Amino acid sequence: MRLRNIPGAEEALRDFPTFVDNPASYKGRWRERFGNDHPLHVEIGCGKGKFITTMAERHPEINFLAVELQAEVILRALQRTEGREIPNLVFVQHNAAMLTDLFAPGEVSLIYLNFSDPWPKKRHAKRRLTYPSFLAIYRQVLKPDGEIHMKTDNEKLFEFSLNQFAAEGFQLRNITFDLHNSPFAADNVMTEYEERFTAKGQRIYRLEASCQFR
Amino acid sequence: MRLRNIPGAEEALRDFPTFVDNPASYKGRWRERFGNDHPLHVEIGCGKGKFITTMAERHPEINFLAVELQAEVILRALQRTEGREIPNLVFVQHNAAMLTDLFAPGEVSLIYLNFSDPWPKKRHAKRRLTYPSFLAIYRQVLKPDGEIHMKTDNEKLFEFSLNQFAAEGFQLRNITFDLHNSPFAADNVMTEYEERFTAKGQRIYRLEASCQFR
Repeated sequence: MRLRNIPGAEEALRDFPTFVDNPASYKGRWRERFGNDHPLHVEIGCGKGKFITTMAERHPEINFLAVELQAEVILRALQRTEGREIPNLVFVQHNAAMLTDLFAPGEVSLIYLNFSDPWPKKRHAKRRLTYPSFLAIYRQVLKPDGEIHMKTDNEKLFEFSLNQFAAEGFQLRNITFDLHNSPFAADNVMTEYEERFTAKGQRIYRLEASCQFR
Repeated sequence: MRLRNIPGAEEALRDFPTFVDNPASYKGRWRERFGNDHPLHVEIGCGKGKFITTMAERHPEINFLAVELQAEVILRALQRTEGREIPNLVFVQHNAAMLTDLFAPGEVSLIYLNFSDPWPKKRHAKRRLTYPSFLAIYRQVLKPDGEIHMKTDNEKLFEFSLNQFAAEGFQLRNITFDLHNSPFAADNVMTEYEERFTAKGQRIYRLEASCQFR
Protein backbone atom coordinates (compact mmCIF):
# COMPACT_ATOMS: atom_id res chain seq x y z
CA MET A 1 0.00 0.00 0.00
CA ARG A 2 0.99 3.62 -0.35
CA LEU A 3 0.22 6.51 1.93
CA ARG A 4 0.86 10.18 1.35
CA ASN A 5 4.24 11.41 2.46
CA ILE A 6 4.41 12.28 6.15
CA PRO A 7 7.29 14.69 6.92
CA GLY A 8 9.58 13.20 9.53
CA ALA A 9 8.09 9.71 9.27
CA GLU A 10 11.48 8.01 9.07
CA GLU A 11 12.65 9.73 12.24
CA ALA A 12 9.36 9.07 14.03
CA LEU A 13 9.79 5.32 13.56
CA ARG A 14 12.80 5.32 15.87
CA ASP A 15 10.64 6.34 18.82
CA PHE A 16 8.90 2.96 18.79
CA PRO A 17 10.55 0.13 20.73
CA THR A 18 9.13 -2.45 18.27
CA PHE A 19 10.87 -0.75 15.33
CA VAL A 20 14.30 -2.17 14.55
CA ASP A 21 16.46 0.53 13.04
CA ASN A 22 19.42 -1.62 12.03
CA PRO A 23 17.80 -4.93 11.06
CA ALA A 24 20.74 -6.24 9.00
CA SER A 25 22.77 -6.37 12.20
CA TYR A 26 20.43 -9.11 13.45
CA LYS A 27 20.92 -11.31 10.40
CA GLY A 28 21.37 -14.87 11.65
CA ARG A 29 20.66 -13.93 15.24
CA TRP A 30 17.06 -12.75 15.48
CA ARG A 31 16.63 -15.17 18.35
CA GLU A 32 18.92 -12.87 20.34
CA ARG A 33 16.70 -9.90 19.56
CA PHE A 34 13.60 -11.79 20.68
CA GLY A 35 15.36 -13.51 23.57
CA ASN A 36 14.11 -16.98 22.66
CA ASP A 37 14.30 -19.76 20.08
CA HIS A 38 10.74 -19.52 18.82
CA PRO A 39 10.01 -19.89 15.10
CA LEU A 40 10.24 -16.69 13.07
CA HIS A 41 7.30 -15.67 10.86
CA VAL A 42 7.77 -12.81 8.41
CA GLU A 43 5.12 -10.74 6.68
CA ILE A 44 6.23 -9.05 3.47
CA GLY A 45 4.33 -5.77 3.21
CA CYS A 46 2.43 -5.31 6.45
CA GLY A 47 0.06 -2.52 5.45
CA LYS A 48 -1.51 -0.97 8.52
CA GLY A 49 -0.36 -3.92 10.58
CA LYS A 50 -3.63 -5.44 11.74
CA PHE A 51 -2.78 -8.93 10.53
CA ILE A 52 0.67 -9.27 12.07
CA THR A 53 -0.28 -7.48 15.29
CA THR A 54 -3.27 -9.76 15.83
CA MET A 55 -1.23 -12.83 14.93
CA ALA A 56 1.51 -11.84 17.37
CA GLU A 57 -0.99 -11.40 20.18
CA ARG A 58 -2.66 -14.73 19.41
CA HIS A 59 0.61 -16.64 19.09
CA PRO A 60 3.11 -15.70 21.81
CA GLU A 61 4.99 -18.89 20.95
CA ILE A 62 6.01 -17.45 17.58
CA ASN A 63 8.18 -14.42 16.76
CA PHE A 64 6.75 -12.08 14.12
CA LEU A 65 8.65 -9.67 11.92
CA ALA A 66 7.00 -7.26 9.49
CA VAL A 67 8.99 -6.07 6.50
CA GLU A 68 7.69 -2.91 4.85
CA LEU A 69 9.39 -0.48 2.50
CA GLN A 70 7.43 2.69 3.18
CA ALA A 71 8.11 4.62 6.38
CA GLU A 72 4.60 6.12 6.37
CA VAL A 73 3.02 2.65 6.29
CA ILE A 74 5.21 1.34 9.11
CA LEU A 75 4.39 4.41 11.15
CA ARG A 76 0.67 3.68 10.87
CA ALA A 77 1.28 0.08 11.88
CA LEU A 78 3.44 1.09 14.83
CA GLN A 79 0.83 3.56 16.01
CA ARG A 80 -1.63 0.67 16.14
CA THR A 81 0.65 -1.19 18.56
CA GLU A 82 1.11 1.79 20.91
CA GLY A 83 0.38 0.98 24.51
CA ARG A 84 0.19 -2.74 23.80
CA GLU A 85 2.77 -5.16 25.13
CA ILE A 86 3.75 -7.37 22.17
CA PRO A 87 7.31 -8.58 22.83
CA ASN A 88 7.19 -11.11 19.96
CA LEU A 89 6.66 -8.49 17.23
CA VAL A 90 9.07 -6.19 15.42
CA PHE A 91 8.86 -3.95 12.36
CA VAL A 92 11.65 -3.23 9.91
CA GLN A 93 11.93 -0.90 6.94
CA HIS A 94 13.42 -2.89 4.11
CA ASN A 95 13.06 -3.93 0.49
CA ALA A 96 11.66 -7.44 -0.01
CA ALA A 97 14.10 -7.95 -2.87
CA MET A 98 16.92 -7.80 -0.33
CA LEU A 99 15.59 -10.18 2.33
CA THR A 100 18.90 -12.04 2.33
CA ASP A 101 20.41 -8.97 4.01
CA LEU A 102 18.09 -9.59 6.95
CA PHE A 103 17.99 -13.33 7.37
CA ALA A 104 20.54 -16.13 7.36
CA PRO A 105 19.73 -19.21 5.29
CA GLY A 106 16.97 -21.19 7.03
CA GLU A 107 16.29 -18.52 9.66
CA VAL A 108 12.63 -18.02 8.66
CA SER A 109 9.88 -20.59 9.29
CA LEU A 110 7.01 -18.91 7.48
CA ILE A 111 6.47 -16.02 5.08
CA TYR A 112 3.10 -14.29 4.71
CA LEU A 113 2.19 -12.58 1.46
CA ASN A 114 -1.06 -10.77 2.12
CA PHE A 115 -2.75 -8.83 -0.67
CA SER A 116 0.48 -7.99 -2.41
CA ASP A 117 0.35 -5.51 -5.24
CA PRO A 118 -0.84 -7.48 -8.32
CA TRP A 119 1.16 -5.34 -10.76
CA PRO A 120 -1.28 -6.26 -13.52
CA LYS A 121 0.76 -4.96 -16.46
CA LYS A 122 2.93 -7.60 -18.06
CA ARG A 123 5.96 -5.32 -18.10
CA HIS A 124 5.69 -5.04 -14.31
CA ALA A 125 5.47 -8.81 -13.74
CA LYS A 126 8.95 -8.84 -12.18
CA ARG A 127 7.68 -6.70 -9.33
CA ARG A 128 5.06 -9.25 -8.25
CA LEU A 129 6.11 -10.81 -4.96
CA THR A 130 5.64 -14.29 -6.44
CA TYR A 131 7.86 -13.69 -9.44
CA PRO A 132 10.55 -16.43 -9.65
CA SER A 133 13.32 -14.08 -8.48
CA PHE A 134 11.37 -13.46 -5.26
CA LEU A 135 10.61 -17.16 -4.80
CA ALA A 136 14.34 -17.85 -5.04
CA ILE A 137 14.96 -15.33 -2.27
CA TYR A 138 12.26 -16.83 -0.04
CA ARG A 139 13.78 -20.27 -0.60
CA GLN A 140 17.13 -18.96 0.61
CA VAL A 141 15.88 -17.58 3.90
CA LEU A 142 13.27 -20.26 4.66
CA LYS A 143 13.97 -23.43 6.59
CA PRO A 144 13.91 -26.54 4.37
CA ASP A 145 10.34 -27.22 5.51
CA GLY A 146 9.43 -23.53 5.72
CA GLU A 147 6.18 -22.32 4.26
CA ILE A 148 4.72 -19.40 2.35
CA HIS A 149 1.09 -18.49 3.01
CA MET A 150 -0.39 -16.23 0.40
CA LYS A 151 -3.77 -14.60 0.16
CA THR A 152 -5.13 -12.18 -2.38
CA ASP A 153 -8.37 -10.90 -3.84
CA ASN A 154 -6.73 -10.68 -7.25
CA GLU A 155 -7.53 -13.74 -9.31
CA LYS A 156 -4.92 -13.01 -11.96
CA LEU A 157 -2.19 -12.69 -9.34
CA PHE A 158 -3.37 -15.94 -7.78
CA GLU A 159 -3.35 -17.78 -11.09
CA PHE A 160 0.09 -16.34 -11.86
CA SER A 161 1.35 -17.34 -8.43
CA LEU A 162 0.07 -20.93 -8.62
CA ASN A 163 2.02 -21.34 -11.84
CA GLN A 164 5.19 -19.75 -10.47
CA PHE A 165 5.22 -21.81 -7.29
CA ALA A 166 4.64 -24.99 -9.30
CA ALA A 167 7.28 -24.11 -11.89
CA GLU A 168 9.87 -23.32 -9.21
CA GLY A 169 9.35 -26.71 -7.56
CA PHE A 170 7.34 -25.62 -4.54
CA GLN A 171 4.71 -27.98 -3.21
CA LEU A 172 1.23 -26.53 -2.88
CA ARG A 173 -1.37 -27.23 -0.23
CA ASN A 174 -4.71 -25.96 1.04
CA ILE A 175 -5.51 -24.03 -2.11
CA THR A 176 -8.84 -22.27 -1.77
CA PHE A 177 -10.68 -20.00 -4.20
CA ASP A 178 -12.98 -18.70 -1.47
CA LEU A 179 -11.22 -18.42 1.87
CA HIS A 180 -14.18 -17.05 3.78
CA ASN A 181 -16.32 -20.01 2.76
CA SER A 182 -13.63 -22.60 3.39
CA PRO A 183 -12.41 -24.61 6.39
CA PHE A 184 -9.55 -22.09 6.73
CA ALA A 185 -11.89 -19.24 7.59
CA ALA A 186 -12.01 -20.18 11.29
CA ASP A 187 -8.32 -19.44 11.94
CA ASN A 188 -8.03 -16.64 9.42
CA VAL A 189 -6.90 -13.23 10.66
CA MET A 190 -8.08 -10.51 8.31
CA THR A 191 -6.05 -7.55 7.13
CA GLU A 192 -7.73 -4.13 6.98
CA TYR A 193 -7.91 -4.42 3.22
CA GLU A 194 -9.41 -7.89 3.49
CA GLU A 195 -12.14 -6.67 5.85
CA ARG A 196 -13.20 -3.94 3.46
CA PHE A 197 -13.03 -6.22 0.49
CA THR A 198 -14.87 -9.09 2.15
CA ALA A 199 -17.61 -6.75 3.38
CA LYS A 200 -18.36 -6.06 -0.28
CA GLY A 201 -18.92 -9.78 -0.79
CA GLN A 202 -15.79 -10.31 -2.85
CA ARG A 203 -13.78 -13.49 -2.65
CA ILE A 204 -10.34 -14.13 -1.24
CA TYR A 205 -7.95 -16.70 -2.71
CA ARG A 206 -5.40 -18.45 -0.52
CA LEU A 207 -2.63 -21.03 -0.83
CA GLU A 208 0.21 -22.55 1.13
CA ALA A 209 3.51 -23.37 -0.55
CA SER A 210 6.58 -25.13 0.75
CA CYS A 211 9.78 -26.58 -0.55
CA GLN A 212 8.92 -29.61 1.54
CA PHE A 213 5.80 -29.97 3.65
CA ARG A 214 6.28 -31.75 6.94
CA MET B 1 -22.61 -37.52 -19.68
CA ARG B 2 -25.72 -39.65 -19.73
CA LEU B 3 -28.04 -40.39 -22.62
CA ARG B 4 -31.36 -42.15 -22.53
CA ASN B 5 -31.21 -45.90 -22.96
CA ILE B 6 -31.03 -47.01 -26.58
CA PRO B 7 -32.15 -50.64 -27.01
CA GLY B 8 -29.45 -52.67 -28.70
CA ALA B 9 -26.75 -50.02 -28.20
CA GLU B 10 -24.19 -52.51 -26.88
CA GLU B 11 -24.64 -54.74 -29.91
CA ALA B 12 -24.60 -51.79 -32.31
CA LEU B 13 -21.13 -50.79 -31.10
CA ARG B 14 -19.63 -53.95 -32.56
CA ASP B 15 -20.50 -52.84 -36.09
CA PHE B 16 -17.93 -50.05 -35.89
CA PRO B 17 -14.34 -50.89 -36.83
CA THR B 18 -13.00 -48.25 -34.39
CA PHE B 19 -14.78 -49.93 -31.45
CA VAL B 20 -12.61 -52.45 -29.61
CA ASP B 21 -14.81 -55.12 -28.11
CA ASN B 22 -12.16 -56.91 -26.04
CA PRO B 23 -9.86 -54.07 -24.93
CA ALA B 24 -8.27 -55.94 -22.03
CA SER B 25 -6.74 -58.33 -24.55
CA TYR B 26 -4.63 -55.43 -25.83
CA LYS B 27 -3.21 -54.55 -22.42
CA GLY B 28 0.51 -53.92 -22.89
CA ARG B 29 0.32 -54.23 -26.65
CA TRP B 30 -1.82 -51.39 -27.96
CA ARG B 31 1.00 -50.64 -30.37
CA GLU B 32 0.07 -53.90 -32.12
CA ARG B 33 -3.54 -52.78 -32.45
CA PHE B 34 -2.47 -49.44 -33.95
CA GLY B 35 0.37 -50.96 -35.97
CA ASN B 36 2.94 -48.42 -34.81
CA ASP B 37 4.93 -47.17 -31.80
CA HIS B 38 3.28 -43.76 -31.52
CA PRO B 39 2.48 -42.32 -28.09
CA LEU B 40 -0.90 -43.31 -26.67
CA HIS B 41 -3.27 -40.58 -25.46
CA VAL B 42 -6.37 -41.62 -23.52
CA GLU B 43 -9.53 -39.61 -22.90
CA ILE B 44 -11.54 -40.66 -19.85
CA GLY B 45 -15.20 -40.02 -20.64
CA CYS B 46 -15.40 -39.04 -24.30
CA GLY B 47 -18.94 -37.65 -24.42
CA LYS B 48 -20.09 -37.29 -28.01
CA GLY B 49 -16.50 -37.66 -29.16
CA LYS B 50 -15.82 -34.32 -30.81
CA PHE B 51 -12.65 -33.67 -28.83
CA ILE B 52 -10.90 -36.97 -29.39
CA THR B 53 -12.03 -37.30 -32.99
CA THR B 54 -10.72 -33.83 -33.85
CA MET B 55 -7.49 -34.46 -31.94
CA ALA B 56 -6.95 -37.75 -33.77
CA GLU B 57 -7.43 -36.10 -37.15
CA ARG B 58 -5.08 -33.26 -36.24
CA HIS B 59 -2.40 -35.53 -34.79
CA PRO B 60 -1.83 -38.63 -36.92
CA GLU B 61 1.50 -39.09 -35.08
CA ILE B 62 -0.38 -39.94 -31.88
CA ASN B 63 -2.71 -42.86 -31.08
CA PHE B 64 -5.94 -41.93 -29.34
CA LEU B 65 -8.13 -44.14 -27.19
CA ALA B 66 -11.45 -43.05 -25.71
CA VAL B 67 -12.67 -44.78 -22.57
CA GLU B 68 -16.38 -44.43 -21.88
CA LEU B 69 -18.66 -46.44 -19.65
CA GLN B 70 -22.00 -45.89 -21.34
CA ALA B 71 -22.78 -47.75 -24.55
CA GLU B 72 -25.24 -45.05 -25.68
CA VAL B 73 -22.56 -42.37 -25.40
CA ILE B 74 -19.98 -44.40 -27.31
CA LEU B 75 -22.55 -45.09 -30.00
CA ARG B 76 -23.08 -41.36 -30.53
CA ALA B 77 -19.32 -40.81 -30.68
CA LEU B 78 -18.87 -43.67 -33.14
CA GLN B 79 -21.64 -42.36 -35.36
CA ARG B 80 -19.68 -39.09 -35.56
CA THR B 81 -16.70 -40.97 -37.00
CA GLU B 82 -18.70 -42.83 -39.65
CA GLY B 83 -17.29 -42.50 -43.11
CA ARG B 84 -14.10 -40.89 -41.83
CA GLU B 85 -10.77 -42.63 -42.04
CA ILE B 86 -9.17 -42.24 -38.59
CA PRO B 87 -6.80 -45.18 -38.13
CA ASN B 88 -5.25 -43.69 -34.97
CA LEU B 89 -8.49 -43.66 -32.95
CA VAL B 90 -10.32 -46.37 -31.04
CA PHE B 91 -13.19 -46.43 -28.55
CA VAL B 92 -13.60 -48.82 -25.67
CA GLN B 93 -16.41 -49.39 -23.18
CA HIS B 94 -14.81 -49.55 -19.75
CA ASN B 95 -14.86 -48.23 -16.22
CA ALA B 96 -12.20 -45.61 -15.47
CA ALA B 97 -11.68 -47.18 -12.06
CA MET B 98 -10.32 -50.25 -13.81
CA LEU B 99 -7.88 -48.66 -16.25
CA THR B 100 -5.16 -51.04 -15.12
CA ASP B 101 -7.12 -53.81 -16.88
CA LEU B 102 -6.53 -51.96 -20.14
CA PHE B 103 -3.01 -50.64 -19.91
CA ALA B 104 0.35 -51.98 -18.78
CA PRO B 105 2.42 -49.75 -16.46
CA GLY B 106 3.81 -46.84 -18.45
CA GLU B 107 1.81 -47.62 -21.59
CA VAL B 108 -0.04 -44.26 -21.65
CA SER B 109 1.64 -40.93 -22.48
CA LEU B 110 -1.23 -38.58 -21.76
CA ILE B 111 -4.65 -38.71 -20.11
CA TYR B 112 -7.38 -36.16 -20.89
CA LEU B 113 -10.03 -35.37 -18.33
CA ASN B 114 -12.54 -33.13 -20.09
CA PHE B 115 -15.53 -31.77 -18.17
CA SER B 116 -15.74 -34.74 -15.86
CA ASP B 117 -18.77 -35.01 -13.63
CA PRO B 118 -18.08 -32.69 -10.64
CA TRP B 119 -20.03 -34.86 -8.19
CA PRO B 120 -20.64 -31.80 -6.00
CA LYS B 121 -21.91 -33.63 -2.94
CA LYS B 122 -19.23 -34.42 -0.41
CA ARG B 123 -20.41 -38.00 -0.01
CA HIS B 124 -19.80 -38.51 -3.74
CA ALA B 125 -16.26 -37.07 -3.68
CA LYS B 126 -14.76 -40.52 -4.31
CA ARG B 127 -16.44 -40.60 -7.70
CA ARG B 128 -14.62 -37.49 -8.93
CA LEU B 129 -12.05 -38.47 -11.54
CA THR B 130 -9.36 -36.53 -9.65
CA TYR B 131 -9.96 -38.27 -6.32
CA PRO B 132 -6.68 -39.73 -4.99
CA SER B 133 -7.70 -43.31 -5.83
CA PHE B 134 -8.08 -42.30 -9.49
CA LEU B 135 -4.80 -40.36 -9.48
CA ALA B 136 -3.07 -43.50 -8.19
CA ILE B 137 -4.51 -45.45 -11.12
CA TYR B 138 -3.40 -42.83 -13.64
CA ARG B 139 0.08 -42.90 -12.14
CA GLN B 140 0.22 -46.67 -12.70
CA VAL B 141 -0.64 -46.57 -16.37
CA LEU B 142 1.22 -43.35 -17.28
CA LYS B 143 4.84 -43.22 -18.38
CA PRO B 144 7.12 -41.65 -15.75
CA ASP B 145 6.94 -38.33 -17.60
CA GLY B 146 3.32 -38.85 -18.68
CA GLU B 147 0.83 -36.03 -18.30
CA ILE B 148 -2.77 -35.41 -17.35
CA HIS B 149 -4.55 -32.52 -19.04
CA MET B 150 -7.73 -31.50 -17.31
CA LYS B 151 -10.34 -28.93 -18.21
CA THR B 152 -13.62 -28.10 -16.56
CA ASP B 153 -16.14 -25.34 -16.20
CA ASN B 154 -16.69 -26.32 -12.57
CA GLU B 155 -14.64 -24.13 -10.27
CA LYS B 156 -15.16 -26.33 -7.23
CA LEU B 157 -13.98 -29.41 -9.09
CA PHE B 158 -10.97 -27.43 -10.31
CA GLU B 159 -10.08 -26.23 -6.82
CA PHE B 160 -10.53 -29.77 -5.49
CA SER B 161 -8.38 -31.17 -8.27
CA LEU B 162 -5.53 -28.68 -7.78
CA ASN B 163 -5.35 -29.77 -4.16
CA GLN B 164 -5.49 -33.48 -4.95
CA PHE B 165 -2.81 -33.32 -7.62
CA ALA B 166 -0.57 -31.31 -5.29
CA ALA B 167 -1.20 -33.61 -2.32
CA GLU B 168 -0.46 -36.72 -4.37
CA GLY B 169 2.89 -35.34 -5.48
CA PHE B 170 2.04 -34.41 -9.05
CA GLN B 171 3.72 -31.38 -10.55
CA LEU B 172 1.40 -28.75 -11.98
CA ARG B 173 1.89 -26.59 -15.03
CA ASN B 174 0.02 -24.20 -17.30
CA ILE B 175 -2.79 -23.59 -14.84
CA THR B 176 -5.34 -21.22 -16.28
CA PHE B 177 -8.60 -19.93 -14.84
CA ASP B 178 -9.83 -18.73 -18.24
CA LEU B 179 -8.70 -21.03 -21.01
CA HIS B 180 -10.38 -19.13 -23.82
CA ASN B 181 -8.58 -15.93 -22.86
CA SER B 182 -5.22 -17.60 -22.33
CA PRO B 183 -2.26 -18.51 -24.53
CA PHE B 184 -3.59 -22.10 -24.58
CA ALA B 185 -6.73 -21.11 -26.50
CA ALA B 186 -4.98 -21.31 -29.87
CA ASP B 187 -4.36 -25.08 -29.72
CA ASN B 188 -7.47 -25.91 -27.74
CA VAL B 189 -9.93 -28.37 -29.23
CA MET B 190 -13.38 -27.83 -27.76
CA THR B 191 -15.76 -30.55 -26.66
CA GLU B 192 -19.48 -30.20 -27.54
CA TYR B 193 -20.19 -29.26 -23.95
CA GLU B 194 -17.40 -26.69 -23.95
CA GLU B 195 -18.76 -25.05 -27.10
CA ARG B 196 -22.20 -24.62 -25.58
CA PHE B 197 -20.79 -23.44 -22.30
CA THR B 198 -18.31 -21.03 -23.83
CA ALA B 199 -20.98 -19.56 -26.09
CA LYS B 200 -22.77 -18.48 -22.91
CA GLY B 201 -19.65 -16.55 -21.90
CA GLN B 202 -18.71 -18.90 -19.06
CA ARG B 203 -15.13 -19.65 -18.20
CA ILE B 204 -13.14 -22.83 -18.60
CA TYR B 205 -10.41 -23.86 -16.15
CA ARG B 206 -7.47 -25.95 -17.30
CA LEU B 207 -4.33 -27.51 -15.87
CA GLU B 208 -1.57 -29.93 -16.75
CA ALA B 209 -0.22 -32.39 -14.19
CA SER B 210 2.66 -34.80 -14.35
CA CYS B 211 4.67 -37.01 -12.07
CA GLN B 212 7.69 -35.50 -13.77
CA PHE B 213 7.60 -32.87 -16.47
CA ARG B 214 10.18 -33.27 -19.21
